[in-house]
Amino acid sequence: MSSMWGQTLKISLFGESHGPGIGVVIDGLPSGHRLDEEAIRQFMLRRAPGRSPWSTRRQESDETEILSGLYGGRTTGAPLAALIRNTDARSADYGDLVNKPRPGHADLAGSFRYQGFQDPRGGGHFSGRLTAPMTFAGALCRQILLEKGLWIAAHVYEIAGIPDEPFNPVDPDEKRLAALAAKPFPVLDDAAGARMIEAVEKARLSADSVGGVIETIIAGLPAGLGDPIFEGLESRLSSLVLGIPAVKGIEFGSGFSSARMTGSIHNDTPVIVDDKIRFRTNHSGGIQGGISNGMPVVFRIAVKPTPSIGQEQQTINLSEMNEEQLIIKGRHDPCIVPRAVPVAEAAAAIFALDLMLGAGFFRTHEPSGF
Amino acid sequence: MSSMWGQTLKISLFGESHGPGIGVVIDGLPSGHRLDEEAIRQFMLRRAPGRSPWSTRRQESDETEILSGLYGGRTTGAPLAALIRNTDARSADYGDLVNKPRPGHADLAGSFRYQGFQDPRGGGHFSGRLTAPMTFAGALCRQILLEKGLWIAAHVYEIAGIPDEPFNPVDPDEKRLAALAAKPFPVLDDAAGARMIEAVEKARLSADSVGGVIETIIAGLPAGLGDPIFEGLESRLSSLVLGIPAVKGIEFGSGFSSARMTGSIHNDTPVIVDDKIRFRTNHSGGIQGGISNGMPVVFRIAVKPTPSIGQEQQTINLSEMNEEQLIIKGRHDPCIVPRAVPVAEAAAAIFALDLMLGAGFFRTHEPSGF
Amino acid sequence: MSSMWGQTLKISLFGESHGPGIGVVIDGLPSGHRLDEEAIRQFMLRRAPGRSPWSTRRQESDETEILSGLYGGRTTGAPLAALIRNTDARSADYGDLVNKPRPGHADLAGSFRYQGFQDPRGGGHFSGRLTAPMTFAGALCRQILLEKGLWIAAHVYEIAGIPDEPFNPVDPDEKRLAALAAKPFPVLDDAAGARMIEAVEKARLSADSVGGVIETIIAGLPAGLGDPIFEGLESRLSSLVLGIPAVKGIEFGSGFSSARMTGSIHNDTPVIVDDKIRFRTNHSGGIQGGISNGMPVVFRIAVKPTPSIGQEQQTINLSEMNEEQLIIKGRHDPCIVPRAVPVAEAAAAIFALDLMLGAGFFRTHEPSGF
Amino acid sequence: MSSMWGQTLKISLFGESHGPGIGVVIDGLPSGHRLDEEAIRQFMLRRAPGRSPWSTRRQESDETEILSGLYGGRTTGAPLAALIRNTDARSADYGDLVNKPRPGHADLAGSFRYQGFQDPRGGGHFSGRLTAPMTFAGALCRQILLEKGLWIAAHVYEIAGIPDEPFNPVDPDEKRLAALAAKPFPVLDDAAGARMIEAVEKARLSADSVGGVIETIIAGLPAGLGDPIFEGLESRLSSLVLGIPAVKGIEFGSGFSSARMTGSIHNDTPVIVDDKIRFRTNHSGGIQGGISNGMPVVFRIAVKPTPSIGQEQQTINLSEMNEEQLIIKGRHDPCIVPRAVPVAEAAAAIFALDLMLGAGFFRTHEPSGF
Repeated sequence: MSSMWGQTLKISLFGESHGPGIGVVIDGLPSGHRLDEEAIRQFMLRRAPGRSPWSTRRQESDETEILSGLYGGRTTGAPLAALIRNTDARSADYGDLVNKPRPGHADLAGSFRYQGFQDPRGGGHFSGRLTAPMTFAGALCRQILLEKGLWIAAHVYEIAGIPDEPFNPVDPDEKRLAALAAKPFPVLDDAAGARMIEAVEKARLSADSVGGVIETIIAGLPAGLGDPIFEGLESRLSSLVLGIPAVKGIEFGSGFSSARMTGSIHNDTPVIVDDKIRFRTNHSGGIQGGISNGMPVVFRIAVKPTPSIGQEQQTINLSEMNEEQLIIKGRHDPCIVPRAVPVAEAAAAIFALDLMLGAGFFRTHEPSGF
Repeated sequence: MSSMWGQTLKISLFGESHGPGIGVVIDGLPSGHRLDEEAIRQFMLRRAPGRSPWSTRRQESDETEILSGLYGGRTTGAPLAALIRNTDARSADYGDLVNKPRPGHADLAGSFRYQGFQDPRGGGHFSGRLTAPMTFAGALCRQILLEKGLWIAAHVYEIAGIPDEPFNPVDPDEKRLAALAAKPFPVLDDAAGARMIEAVEKARLSADSVGGVIETIIAGLPAGLGDPIFEGLESRLSSLVLGIPAVKGIEFGSGFSSARMTGSIHNDTPVIVDDKIRFRTNHSGGIQGGISNGMPVVFRIAVKPTPSIGQEQQTINLSEMNEEQLIIKGRHDPCIVPRAVPVAEAAAAIFALDLMLGAGFFRTHEPSGF
Repeated sequence: MSSMWGQTLKISLFGESHGPGIGVVIDGLPSGHRLDEEAIRQFMLRRAPGRSPWSTRRQESDETEILSGLYGGRTTGAPLAALIRNTDARSADYGDLVNKPRPGHADLAGSFRYQGFQDPRGGGHFSGRLTAPMTFAGALCRQILLEKGLWIAAHVYEIAGIPDEPFNPVDPDEKRLAALAAKPFPVLDDAAGARMIEAVEKARLSADSVGGVIETIIAGLPAGLGDPIFEGLESRLSSLVLGIPAVKGIEFGSGFSSARMTGSIHNDTPVIVDDKIRFRTNHSGGIQGGISNGMPVVFRIAVKPTPSIGQEQQTINLSEMNEEQLIIKGRHDPCIVPRAVPVAEAAAAIFALDLMLGAGFFRTHEPSGF
Repeated sequence: MSSMWGQTLKISLFGESHGPGIGVVIDGLPSGHRLDEEAIRQFMLRRAPGRSPWSTRRQESDETEILSGLYGGRTTGAPLAALIRNTDARSADYGDLVNKPRPGHADLAGSFRYQGFQDPRGGGHFSGRLTAPMTFAGALCRQILLEKGLWIAAHVYEIAGIPDEPFNPVDPDEKRLAALAAKPFPVLDDAAGARMIEAVEKARLSADSVGGVIETIIAGLPAGLGDPIFEGLESRLSSLVLGIPAVKGIEFGSGFSSARMTGSIHNDTPVIVDDKIRFRTNHSGGIQGGISNGMPVVFRIAVKPTPSIGQEQQTINLSEMNEEQLIIKGRHDPCIVPRAVPVAEAAAAIFALDLMLGAGFFRTHEPSGF
């Protein structure tokens, strides 16, 4: 197991869906940053369950208690631990799962790994609920990044094959993208969004689920961060983002579309704009040779359809070693993509702050105050 | 910079395209494994340049000298260092690159990062040539994995939009896939391959380049390896594979296609086959909750078109800070996808051996020999 | 900041002396181990404050709430987080410390590092109180190690220059050493212990403090663990143990005494005892070439005298940048050595379990339960 | 195995005493630093064998070939690999060692770990010869640190119980300490040095060996580096320094002597000197709470007597599992302490550069050159 990630900024996630609580230790924060706890709360609400028809009906306020690392409202530089108590846990819904694993879930792989000792209630530590503390950590990192002029946005790029308008990766409109955060269904094209909601509702009614794609942009990242080979931004970001449950793919810039382009189309032409180096296109997603080139970093992630569906499914009975039918009870999302949008932003923020800290952006080498 | 990767097995890559040599230190190998150096040489030839029309005409035999970690033909357990001397380096071809960065290359991002002190000759440490020592490391890891029944294969899944027959992710035909290694153009469907070669040739004639997709399979990986969240197989493999130059995306199992499936389709149904647990489909690519489930691990990577093309392109002159035209000289691949196939296999092998070693598969707890 | 440590087993400490609470996330525990929470509580009491004349009079029961990683009384394999609320915090005692740093404390270095934003109350995250969650983690690891036949003991080796009887590093008496855990003042020679207590009391009456040395033994560690150079047991153990506040030195086996021996004396002669390989002496402390040789691992740590003393001391006023006198209020230990004994044992246990896990001792490669 | 160390600057050591060669990859160097290769060569000569009566008579020039990471005489920021060919290897001297391990050596522990497959010739990868590439890396790091005003010195603090004059840890005399590097036997008090040489010669004549202590100082390290708990300077430096073969202990500042002091003596009083914060004493060795306080960092390491001695010793025969006599042939140092002095300096330099790089001291956030 390692639910830890990071180099200079490190996070350590803990908790289970139906245990006493979930939380995160954030180790390596710069000192002296005044936290806006209300803004963090608002950010976390975008992920919280029970607030829309496409979300599980489980009610969790996700109130977060900060246990350490904060003094006088500012970060101290010491590890900041945050705890979210589980309140609406109903373990009875999940009784037989160790013996009858849910198709598409980690129940069976988890049993292989932990010899059946994993907490089966609601997926335990495998639960998407673990994205709550990750979102907390990301919300906090975002605030600190904003001081350096970085901003992050994400949207539902596609659900059930229905596309939103893509981000402009060359010259993103900060105001327009900032408005996404206020939308219950974060798309640029609300008409497309309405069709997506319809598709989600249709899946819900047929006791099924749908997947989708999320696009995220990190704007304002200075050029010259990262390194070739294994410290490339693609490597580092992937190792974090693919830790989000249900994410099965990631692409940067034009990504898989690049594979169908010619070099003459794909190569981003450098240009001089107002005495600054920019690029005419951004097929590379702001990353060349693993290093930021000053353009927005753009990536998309594939989110598989929620495995918990209401239909009867075939599974196996581990004690009998035979095949049986299963009907999953409990409360589930027919589509987790909208709720995963702030999680993608959170991951981007954690990644970017780790990168910036590693490059020394928040260190002051003159001991101050005296 | 960190050209190091791994947890239990660690590799450290070094070298530049036109410097004295390139190489790798492999730290953490199990002791006692007899190396078949000829097999490694054969494996590396699949990547070596100058052997086909779609490859650069640079001639490098990639003869590898093992400097340490081998005694009496067997691994000692100490770091195994390997050195490949550069022989056909022509630095004169690359004179002006620091000042006039090549579009689509890391020249400019590298200058941002290293303040112009990076070795500009042939891309220096950013060069695809660094995949030679990575391929050596992978070839070596493959041999060790074979002893545990793991095998790895890869093919050109798509070039210029032309698809090969996909791998069967449920029940791959080991013999048929093993035959891919002997093909100069590794595809299952040779007719499709012929059309791809044609597309590559067309790109070459128009002084352009094309990209593609590579599909890789790891078969025989035991169930129960990996962990949820950040030690998931997707996270670990991505952090390695996205370190290969030109790779801009990765997907596992159905990957981005999952995003368009419903849960009832996507969920892999567990079944009992000969008293063993298997799955009817393998949309998850052998990984659930980050953990191997006993099915083949399948992943695809997007390879962008080679940025070095013969056409005149616009770039900027850094000392003048104006825009200029550039014609890249030197010898380049119109398509690196076929040569990248063994590199993908190598990455898969390094990943898998690191994973197996971390799980204690090669440790004997009884001190032996006495 | 990084209050994280470990490779396979990782711990993440958080909290401040006078904040809401302190705690630890333990990531990487093997699954299926039944915890004896009462035994952990007993172990932690050995470190807890307020129980003896040589301890601070601060009262903390150190009741530990396990937040995750435990299900049905057994470890699940997921991160186990534990929280200890601070109850007897009196922040008023520590008002002026940011401006008037206490000599011998981290106050000033902390201000250099965190620009004065660190939590100054009771030393904040620098406090020895952070050894409570470390002791919890160690107590837990000890239980798991016992199943593999490892046991750990420590004693006050020396206080104020008064020595205890040293451990027998060749053939330690398990029963006799186990009895140390029940002693309020853990020494083998109680007469020497009485003299030490006298020295501590004398220091306390003169508003001063004394330091000492702790000796720890790890018995039952299998031969063949560790690696030469940087993964040597000395390197790994030091990196953990020197993280305990107030520890200023470590030595293995004969340690600094080795420096005065000749090779003919120092070399441990291998012998055959009951068909097993043993050594006649154990000057190497059970470690040769960084690797365990099957003999007990023995190390000693130097603990500096508590910096908080009641005497008037000179310090500086940071805002005035002049020199001033300081009298430290608050409740302090005249000697922390006895309370640090279980902390040393805890560190040894964390180290040993990380080592064992990394070597695959707790992995079962046959998925069990079905 | 892991012969890798570091966080921002990482080194990867490889090679065996009697294999083709030994070397190091240094990953993470800042770009643009002009190397003085002759100065590195001079530094390495201080460690090289065959130059004094107390050294092995093996002749190795330790000529180092830089394979990568250098362009136009300056570091590029890419990994710098260096190779030292072994020239005077005489494997025949070491024939029977796998079966008849040398007392005090890693032969037996190595066999436990690597099942007898380790390279036995001259200790293989366990050999002190591996300190040659470490010394190369350190020599290189020293040059870069000098640009920031850091300097490092070390001396033989004690051999066979005979002490040198200790360093002044408060106000070290840079010139006097710099002169140590030119001395074949680096002590401050040459009369004491003469007595030490005598003791070494006496050991040599009786086919025995002696150990000693090395004291090292790092001056000019900025205040505010490091962190409490596991990223403390003591933890980080120990993890590196205890990787040097034969080192069995380390202490910082007053170290084990602290254990016999009272707090009122041990506490370093802060004072204002020329408007700067200094300390009247330096019992803490420049480190408080794990963080540098602006005073010189001082540490001492215990070096055990060379295990290879000419006297007949008892060992065991592993194939017979009985006890036998052994006479070690080959060429050995009666005392490695003087040759280990530059190794200690090298380790200090690697540590300090890693620390400085991690704190962002060598990053320029303004992309330069355009």
